[in-house]
Formats: sequence, C-alpha cells, structure tokens
Amino acid sequence: MFTHQRELRIEWGDCDPADIVFYPRYFAFFDASTGALFEAMGCSLRDVRRQANQVGFPMVDTRSQFYKPSKYGDIVLIESQISEVGHASFGIQHRLFNDGKLAVECSEKRVWAGLNEQGELKAQAIPDSVRKRMLA
Amino acid sequence: MFTHQRELRIEWGDCDPADIVFYPRYFAFFDASTGALFEAMGCSLRDVRRQANQVGFPMVDTRSQFYKPSKYGDIVLIESQISEVGHASFGIQHRLFNDGKLAVECSEKRVWAGLNEQGELKAQAIPDSVRKRMLA
Amino acid sequence: MFTHQRELRIEWGDCDPADIVFYPRYFAFFDASTGALFEAMGCSLRDVRRQANQVGFPMVDTRSQFYKPSKYGDIVLIESQISEVGHASFGIQHRLFNDGKLAVECSEKRVWAGLNEQGELKAQAIPDSVRKRMLA
Amino acid sequence: MFTHQRELRIEWGDCDPADIVFYPRYFAFFDASTGALFEAMGCSLRDVRRQANQVGFPMVDTRSQFYKPSKYGDIVLIESQISEVGHASFGIQHRLFNDGKLAVECSEKRVWAGLNEQGELKAQAIPDSVRKRMLA
Repeated sequence: MFTHQRELRIEWGDCDPADIVFYPRYFAFFDASTGALFEAMGCSLRDVRRQANQVGFPMVDTRSQFYKPSKYGDIVLIESQISEVGHASFGIQHRLFNDGKLAVECSEKRVWAGLNEQGELKAQAIPDSVRKRMLA
Repeated sequence: MFTHQRELRIEWGDCDPADIVFYPRYFAFFDASTGALFEAMGCSLRDVRRQANQVGFPMVDTRSQFYKPSKYGDIVLIESQISEVGHASFGIQHRLFNDGKLAVECSEKRVWAGLNEQGELKAQAIPDSVRKRMLA
Repeated sequence: MFTHQRELRIEWGDCDPADIVFYPRYFAFFDASTGALFEAMGCSLRDVRRQANQVGFPMVDTRSQFYKPSKYGDIVLIESQISEVGHASFGIQHRLFNDGKLAVECSEKRVWAGLNEQGELKAQAIPDSVRKRMLA
Repeated sequence: MFTHQRELRIEWGDCDPADIVFYPRYFAFFDASTGALFEAMGCSLRDVRRQANQVGFPMVDTRSQFYKPSKYGDIVLIESQISEVGHASFGIQHRLFNDGKLAVECSEKRVWAGLNEQGELKAQAIPDSVRKRMLA
C-alpha cells in the first residue's frame, strides 16, 4: 500500500516542563503526515476540498503508543502507510523513529466525508481514482 | 468602554522546558478572552458569523509585553477592555494578573470583516448596534 | 474508582477549517482533565513534581474514538475516571459529552515515573497514599 | 547582522474556521525561526541550555502585523534577522512571505537569561562569543 516518509524537527514549543514532547503534539505531527501522504499520492486535502460538498477525511479512531521520549532539537523520521482500505473508511499507520529507534507508533481510522443536503458530515464511498492510489 | 474579566488555569501543555508558559499560548488565551468579551457584550463571534458573508474580526496588529512568567497550575486573571473604536477597526487591551501582579500586557487591533463578491476578506463598517455596546 | 467532571468551552483556536475541533486538541483537553482529576484527588502534578526526582505520570498508550464533532462556542462536559491501578502504571477513561450526548471517548495508560541516577525516565511503584485515593 | 531563512508549510491544524492561519500559530513559527537562527549561528538553544544555570532567551516584548492571510497548504518563507544587540537583551525581526509578498512582520525583544541562586530567571550579559556572531 502507499507509503510516505518525512523528517521533522522537534521545536521548543512542542515540549513540556518534563523536557520531552507534549504527547498531543504527536497527533498534530501525524495529522500533518497524513496530509503529506495524500499530497504524495497526488490528491491533496486542498484538492479534495475544492470539489463540491467534500470535507476531507475526518478522524474516527486513533491510538498512539509511546516507547521513547523525544526532546527539543531532535530530528525524527515519520513513516506513514495506508494500512486498510474500506468502502468509505481507511486506515493509516505511522511510525516515528528517533536516532533509528522506533519511538512512537500511531494507527488512524478515518472516513471519506462530505456534507449532505442538511449540511451534516456524512461518510461517502472513496472515489475509485483515490482507492487505486491508496492500494498502489 | 466595555470590560470583561475571566479566570484561567495554566495547564501543563501550556508550558515549555523552562517550566513557564510558552509565550504563543498567551496569544491564544487573549484571543479566547476577546471571544469572551464579545459574548459578554451580547454579540458572540458565533452569532456574528451566522450573518451572510460575515467572517468575524481578524487580527491586524498585536503586541505583548511579558513582565513575569507564569507556571503550571497558576490561576491567572485576564482583564480585557475595548480601548478604541474606529469606523471598521477597533482596539482591545488585555492585562493578565498572576497573584495580583501584572504579568503580561497585550494590545490588539482588529478589523470587522466580511467576504466580498470575489470571496476575499474585506474590512466593513462596524454595525451601530455593536459600536454602541463597545462604547458602553 | 475516583471520578471527576469539568466543563470546557470550545474556543475558536481549537477548531479547524472544517469548522470542528481539530482532534489533537481533544488530547490536550484530556491531559488537562487528568491533571484536574489528580488535583481533585489531593495530589496535583505540581505537588508530585516537588518531590525529589519525581517527573509525573507520562503517557504510554492512548486511544480516542470520535462519535460527534464539536464546534466553536460549544460547552462540553468531560467525565474522567481512574479505570485501572497497577504496580507502576494506571489507566484513565475520559468521556466527553456535548449537549448530553457522548461525543468522544478516550482511554489512557500512564506510568508513575521518576528520574534514575543517569537522569533517565523510569517507572516506579505508585505510592500507597496515591493508590488509596485512586481506588476510592 | 546575522540573517537566516527557512521555508515552512502551513498545516491543516494551523488554520481556523475562517480557513486562514490562527494568528497565535505565527508566534510559534517565529519562535522556531529564532531557534533556527541561533542554530545557524552555531549556538543552538540546546547547547546554550547545557551550560550551568543557563535558561535561554525568553521573550520580553513581541509585536506582529498581519498584512495578508495564509491558507492550508501554502509554502511560506520566513526571513529572520538580528536587529539589535544590547548588553543583556537583543532584537530579532521576522518577515514572512507568501507567494513573494510580505504577509506578516514580527519584532521580538528577548533577554539572555539564567537562574540566580534563588532559582529565579535573571538577565545576564550576552557572552562575547555570541555577540560577535550576532553582529556578523
């Protein structure tokens, strides 16, 4: 399935008084990694949202496990992969490496979503063109 | 001019490895205080945005001065006041007190903004009903 | 087991261009709710960290499920409960209600941690006085 | 005086319901740009903090002016320059360009700070080796 990697620098403002990354920041990193994965697939969230009533791919369920803390100034590598493709939902797996060691793991379940006539968020079938790229 | 106060608790995630509030968080506090000020005036941003093509009151210019650091678990008081009312713009002054002492001061200049026919942000005259409450 | 509730207002800066809470913000809300739970138990993180070499209770594993989006200006209720007490680790369950409906659920596994002689984070036995309050 | 540039991608989580960057995020960008400037000068905050009782360079006064909004997916350029070097304080000027146009300007006044014997933050003379690089 489609995979993407990016490097990231841990900033001062990402860290807490214990001198390690404040863990909610990892979820912001992983959300941006999912954005980068879609851009690398050739269908950025920006493009998806340009289509009428398309909202994007909101999060339904996410879990992170933290094995090693990271600190200010560390350069980390995030590897992101499509892990599952359903009718209207899909999964992503992120692995964050620090100094070559697995430091954080995260799984995401998201839905392909648009607005219905009442302006409410509704899951929709993933378009075939997107599905093909996810499975590549 | 209209004035509003609110108390706030400094959270762990607001603080950095120097064990004090990461200063960009103060701007988020003050933005929320401006929101609370408008709500107390009876015209919440939520209501304003319900009117066709109204966006809200985006920031044009803001400055903060930091006199004393605050730490995790501190309860601080933010006092917010309309400081200036122009045709399409207005000023707000925030003062954050910690243990009775002035710790941070912030001034904001914002515009009353809507979308024009091209979908671009444009400054607009502040409605009279809002102006009256600002000057109260 | 020990339970605590608090109300929270969704701020403008918590929301994203889809006009709903940016989900990493929920983790920051829940982290602050865990802080409030410990404070209500009479052993705030601030107190814990005042003891020599005590760091706090870093996150090991957390998962959130998102059932209903929340929007700017919503007042939500977070109910937090100790769900499990081990030798050196414990669990917390958060439930966020919006307008009386369960909107987000989160489970946390944290360790009681201090610094060893090398200055590294190490799990430690939860003190008996804390364990008793957790089980109350 | 010493100058540094870096590119930055605007992430989904940096933006608010008006579909533009939530302005407190700019201050986090600029703080990270100051960090990158010091690293480029050969004295990273990480190194500075390794010296006994050194805290870093906390913010005293900062002001931003916002000329043009930026949106999710925009690639912006931040140019940062030392603008003033005093005995124990210094100034930095940041300019953020979007699509070649000046979008945000920010000035910072920071102090060189350490902890005194009571464990309080105190301004200290900027070391000569650092001063020389600032003026380069």
